Amino acid sequence: MYKFVSLRHVLLVSLAINVGLLWRFTNEGNGSDANVRRKTNVIRSSSFTTGLISVDEVQPQEFISLQVGDPTMYTRFWREMGNKTTVVLSGDQHLSYISNVKNLCWFLEPKLESAITRLHQLVGNAVVDDRHIVVGTGSSQLYHAALYALSSLDASEPMSVVAAAPYYSSYPSMTDLLKSGLHKWDGDAHKFNKTKPYIEVVTSPNNPDGFIRKPVVNHENGRVVHDLAYYWPQYTPISSPVDHELVMFTVSKATGHAGMRIGWALVKDEEVAKKMVKYIELNSIGVSKDSQLRATKILQAVIDSYDHTSIPEEGETLFEFGFNLMAERWKKLRTVVKQNPIFSLPNYSPGLCSFSGRTFEPQPAFAWLKCEGQIEDCESFLRSHKILTRGGEKFGVSTKHVRISMVDEDNTFDLFAERLSTIRQ
Amino acid sequence: MYKFVSLRHVLLVSLAINVGLLWRFTNEGNGSDANVRRKTNVIRSSSFTTGLISVDEVQPQEFISLQVGDPTMYTRFWREMGNKTTVVLSGDQHLSYISNVKNLCWFLEPKLESAITRLHQLVGNAVVDDRHIVVGTGSSQLYHAALYALSSLDASEPMSVVAAAPYYSSYPSMTDLLKSGLHKWDGDAHKFNKTKPYIEVVTSPNNPDGFIRKPVVNHENGRVVHDLAYYWPQYTPISSPVDHELVMFTVSKATGHAGMRIGWALVKDEEVAKKMVKYIELNSIGVSKDSQLRATKILQAVIDSYDHTSIPEEGETLFEFGFNLMAERWKKLRTVVKQNPIFSLPNYSPGLCSFSGRTFEPQPAFAWLKCEGQIEDCESFLRSHKILTRGGEKFGVSTKHVRISMVDEDNTFDLFAERLSTIRQ
Repeated sequence: MYKFVSLRHVLLVSLAINVGLLWRFTNEGNGSDANVRRKTNVIRSSSFTTGLISVDEVQPQEFISLQVGDPTMYTRFWREMGNKTTVVLSGDQHLSYISNVKNLCWFLEPKLESAITRLHQLVGNAVVDDRHIVVGTGSSQLYHAALYALSSLDASEPMSVVAAAPYYSSYPSMTDLLKSGLHKWDGDAHKFNKTKPYIEVVTSPNNPDGFIRKPVVNHENGRVVHDLAYYWPQYTPISSPVDHELVMFTVSKATGHAGMRIGWALVKDEEVAKKMVKYIELNSIGVSKDSQLRATKILQAVIDSYDHTSIPEEGETLFEFGFNLMAERWKKLRTVVKQNPIFSLPNYSPGLCSFSGRTFEPQPAFAWLKCEGQIEDCESFLRSHKILTRGGEKFGVSTKHVRISMVDEDNTFDLFAERLSTIRQ
Repeated sequence: MYKFVSLRHVLLVSLAINVGLLWRFTNEGNGSDANVRRKTNVIRSSSFTTGLISVDEVQPQEFISLQVGDPTMYTRFWREMGNKTTVVLSGDQHLSYISNVKNLCWFLEPKLESAITRLHQLVGNAVVDDRHIVVGTGSSQLYHAALYALSSLDASEPMSVVAAAPYYSSYPSMTDLLKSGLHKWDGDAHKFNKTKPYIEVVTSPNNPDGFIRKPVVNHENGRVVHDLAYYWPQYTPISSPVDHELVMFTVSKATGHAGMRIGWALVKDEEVAKKMVKYIELNSIGVSKDSQLRATKILQAVIDSYDHTSIPEEGETLFEFGFNLMAERWKKLRTVVKQNPIFSLPNYSPGLCSFSGRTFEPQPAFAWLKCEGQIEDCESFLRSHKILTRGGEKFGVSTKHVRISMVDEDNTFDLFAERLSTIRQ
C-alpha cells in the first residue's frame, strides 16, 4: 500500500548528468529523514541533464524516478552487517596530503591498495599482478585522468574519444567539459573511420544496455579505456580476469557506496599511471583519505566473508545478497514486460560465472527498456505514466529506448514494477 | 639531538606541483610508522615539480624539506583534543550520491553547510549571508570549478587567467592542465594589459609571500576569484569579513586536515554557483561524504571551543594553538635571519585582529626568504646546505627568493632553524 498524503519537500536540484531532480514524499506524520528512509514511503524522482528546475513546476507528486543509478538497494545489506564495517576516525588523522611516499600513486592509502588487490584475486575479475593502482574521486575523476594520460600533450589537434552507442550518457559532456585541446568527443565508435590516433571507451558490462563488450574500432593507433564498473558477480557472470591496458572500477557499483566517491584504475604502463597521478594531483591534490579508509574496511569485510568455509553466521555475503536481489528484480520485471506488449527487454545469453560456479543470464544494474509499436518517445511515454527514466537519445541511440535503474531501494523498485504492469497504450 | 643512523625507506614519488619527493629517516630500531611519527626523528624532504626521481640518485640523506605546505604541525593539537573529534561511520552510511536535494549544491552535507556558516560568523573573516556554499575536493577542485564557472562557454578564444607575481606556483599548470578552450594562463597580473575579458586570481594572504592583496588589473570586464586559504587568525589579523563575488577556503590550512580534501567556496551569484556545481558533478559526481562529516565534526569542535566564556579545561583553542605556534616559529626564524646577513625576510605591518582583539604582524604559513648579495639561486644555495625549498621562479619572480613551509612538524622546523643559523656564504 502506497499512500502519499503530504508533500514533504519541494525539492530543487541541479544534477547534470548522472544525478537528477529528486522528490521525496513521505507518509503524513513521519519523523526524521532517517526514519523516513527506513520506512517504505520514499520515492525518488530524478531527472534532467542540466539546469535547476522547480519540481512542482514540472511534475505532479507521485513520480517514481529511476534515472540515476543511485545504488541504495545495498543499504539493507550493510545495515544488517551491523558494526562489522564501522570505521572510527580520530581528530588527529589525515593531516598530511601524503599516504605512501613509496608508491607512484603517493595519495593511495596502502591498506586500500592491499584490499583492492585481494578483492580482485578473490573475485577473479581483473589481473592485478604488475599493475599500478591509481585511486580516484570516483571513477569519474579517473575517466578524466585516463583521457589526460592517453592523450598526446603536444598534438596539433585534440584526440578523438569514441564509444560504441549506446554509450554512458555522461561521456560526451565529461570529455568536452573544458573544451580541451587534448581530446574531444567524437561520438559513436561504430561510425569512427578516421586514421588518426583515438581513444575508445569500452564499458563492459555496458551502461546502459548490460551487454559484455569489446573494442569496435581496433586501429593500431588507438588506445582503449575499459570502464568495468559493473563487472561484478551480482550483475554478470565473471568469465575471466580482464587483462587490459587501463581498467577502471568503483565502489559505487561494487558495494553500493556511491557517497564515498572512491574508484580505482589498474594500469599496465608506468608512464600512463604517472600521468593519471599527475592529473589527480593538479585536479584535487589526491583523494579523501577518510573515504579510502572506509572503502578499505568495506572491501575487507567483503573479502573476509568469503574466507569462511562454512556458511556465514549472520546474513549473506555481499555478492550473494546482490545476486539474489538482482535475480528477484529481473524476474519480476521480465514477468511484467512479458505480459505487456508495449515493452520489451534485451535478451542475454547465460554464461558460467567462475566466481560463483553458477550459470546465469546477466542481470544488469540498469534495464534497457524498449517501447514497441507506435511509441516513438519512450521517456515521454513513461513520464506520462509518472515513471521517470533516461531516454535513449542521451546514450546516442533512438528515443524508443530508456534506461531504468535496477539498484534503487526496494519500495521504489516494487512500485515501479507495479506501475509498469498497469500501463496500457 | 638529531641522529640519522639508518635509511628506513628509499622513497619514490611523483608529486607534480604541490607535493614533492619525500624521504623519511628514522632512528635505528624504531617501530611502526605511527611510532616514528610521534618521535622526533622524522624528516620530510619533498621536491621537484614533475617526474619520478629516485631519492638516492639525487640527494644524500639528511635533507630537510619544506617545499610543501603539509600542515602537520596541527597533529599535536588534534591529538590533545582526544576523542572530542572522533567520528564513527557505520557501514550503511553514504550509499547515495545525494546529500541534500533541496540545495543548489546537492552534494553538500547540510551539517557541513551549517558548520561552515557558523565558523565564518565566529571568526568574522567572510560574509556568509546570501551566499551559495559549494563544497569541493579541496580548494584545488574549486579553483577548476571557479575558472569553468567564470569563463564564457561560447567565447571564440580562451579567457586569460592572471595573478600578480609572486603567485601560487600551481596556478599556471592547473589552469592549463587540459589546454582548455575556455581559459588559459596569461601570467603576471601586473603585466596584463589586454582589454578583453579576464579572470584574476587574488590570493590573500598571498601564497608565497604572506601579504594581504587586492586585485591589480581592475578592468570592468574582469572577474575575480579570491583564494582565502590563509585568511585565518593564526596567520594574519582578521580586519573585516570579506565580501567578494567568489571566495574559496579549505580545511587544509584552517584546521590542518589536508588529507580530508575538503574546501568550500562562498559564491554571490546563483548562476556562477550552479556552474561550479556542474563542473564538480562532471568532474567527480560530488565530494566525499565521509570527509564532509569529518570536517563538520572538526569545525564544530572549533566553534564549540569558543562557546565557553571560561578558559577551556583541556588545551587551547585551535586558533590560539595556531597563533602561538606560528608566533614562536616566526620569532625564532626572524632571530636567525637577523643574525645572518645572507638572508632577509619581508616586513609586515601590524594590524588589529577583530577576532582575537590582538594587534600583531602577519605570521604566514610560508616564509618568503631572500638570499642577499651574490647568491642568485637561493633554492640551489639552500639545497647545497641540505634544505629543500621552492624557488622564486616557480612563483613567477626571481630565483633570489624561496618559499619555505612554516607549518610542518616541530622537529622539522626546529632542525631547519638550527641549520639555517649555521649557514655561511
